[in-house]
Amino acid sequence: MSKGGKTRQRIVAEAATLFNQHGFEGSSMADLMEATGLEKGGIYRHFSTKEELAAEAFDYAWQAATDVGMHDLDSIPNSIDKLKRFMANFIERRPSVPGGCPLLNTAIEADDGNPVLRERARKALQQWQDRLSEIVRTGLKRKEIRSGVDPRKLVTFIIGSLEGALMISRLERNRNALLEAQSRLESYLESEIRLPQRKK
Amino acid sequence: MSKGGKTRQRIVAEAATLFNQHGFEGSSMADLMEATGLEKGGIYRHFSTKEELAAEAFDYAWQAATDVGMHDLDSIPNSIDKLKRFMANFIERRPSVPGGCPLLNTAIEADDGNPVLRERARKALQQWQDRLSEIVRTGLKRKEIRSGVDPRKLVTFIIGSLEGALMISRLERNRNALLEAQSRLESYLESEIRLPQRKK
Repeated sequence: MSKGGKTRQRIVAEAATLFNQHGFEGSSMADLMEATGLEKGGIYRHFSTKEELAAEAFDYAWQAATDVGMHDLDSIPNSIDKLKRFMANFIERRPSVPGGCPLLNTAIEADDGNPVLRERARKALQQWQDRLSEIVRTGLKRKEIRSGVDPRKLVTFIIGSLEGALMISRLERNRNALLEAQSRLESYLESEIRLPQRKK
Repeated sequence: MSKGGKTRQRIVAEAATLFNQHGFEGSSMADLMEATGLEKGGIYRHFSTKEELAAEAFDYAWQAATDVGMHDLDSIPNSIDKLKRFMANFIERRPSVPGGCPLLNTAIEADDGNPVLRERARKALQQWQDRLSEIVRTGLKRKEIRSGVDPRKLVTFIIGSLEGALMISRLERNRNALLEAQSRLESYLESEIRLPQRKK
């Protein structure tokens, strides 16, 4: 990678932390200059607007969050166990970009605001719903999941409950709400969603 | 109320909408001047800092959200039915301050940021947990709720799932996620929490 390319990448990584912790509106050009150690011109050489940088920083933070959520899922054969691992990853593994979930942060800041960032968050949510729905669809085909379960609705409930619990946990500065959500969602998956396997 | 008192109240109400939609960092002094129709001096006559105004605006928006959530709860005798009405209120009734839930908005913006607003959000969450926990405790005493249910943990799960579903619904611009959360939480309350009443 060229020196310019490396600098660009470093700006995105530093900006991702700043925006994820303090939001788009809460991160000034001065904050970005301090975080990157660059002058204003050094940043604007790579990004024409703060919004363009924030959009790329979101993608970077979202990729990090997705890597954490999806970690090791491929190694688990059963679809319900995959969903449980996803929840455990969400709760236990710390993404490389601090500041909480970029989807939640950006959705809340941009829902009445910046349309570019709002669209980024909307697509991120959709991507997560698609990837988890695919797991549920496979589980339905393999008869690991009860017929009649709506993949989209189920995964949307799981994502929502985890994101809301994350908000509470970050506010209370302990993991109780997240652990409680995990425990209740796991019971729910076991009792209402998993199709018991007949002994062979 | 004095003319000054009325002006102060009007500033708080206008600022509540602005901050709830665009956040503390996303609302400039110019925005506040436009929303209130006052000069900078007219606002600073009543509030010494933007933060002081934002804190009062949060309390105002939170009171409006609480009024909606708790609407008509006293008229319902059974504790499980009270919790279901709370969820229905959260989903169906529109608070007078637009922009979504002030607790969720402020928690997300302030969790790595402004300590005064963070503390306001933390107390608001606690207040909600307390009021709903009290309903669960009464239900336990009256044997409407299964013994062994932890009031705090149950209501924290309900609040988290509703708040996360609200984030998704606002992002997707439809109510599907909220309605799905309501339906799953209602089933959960009926099947796992409600103690069936013996026929008399």
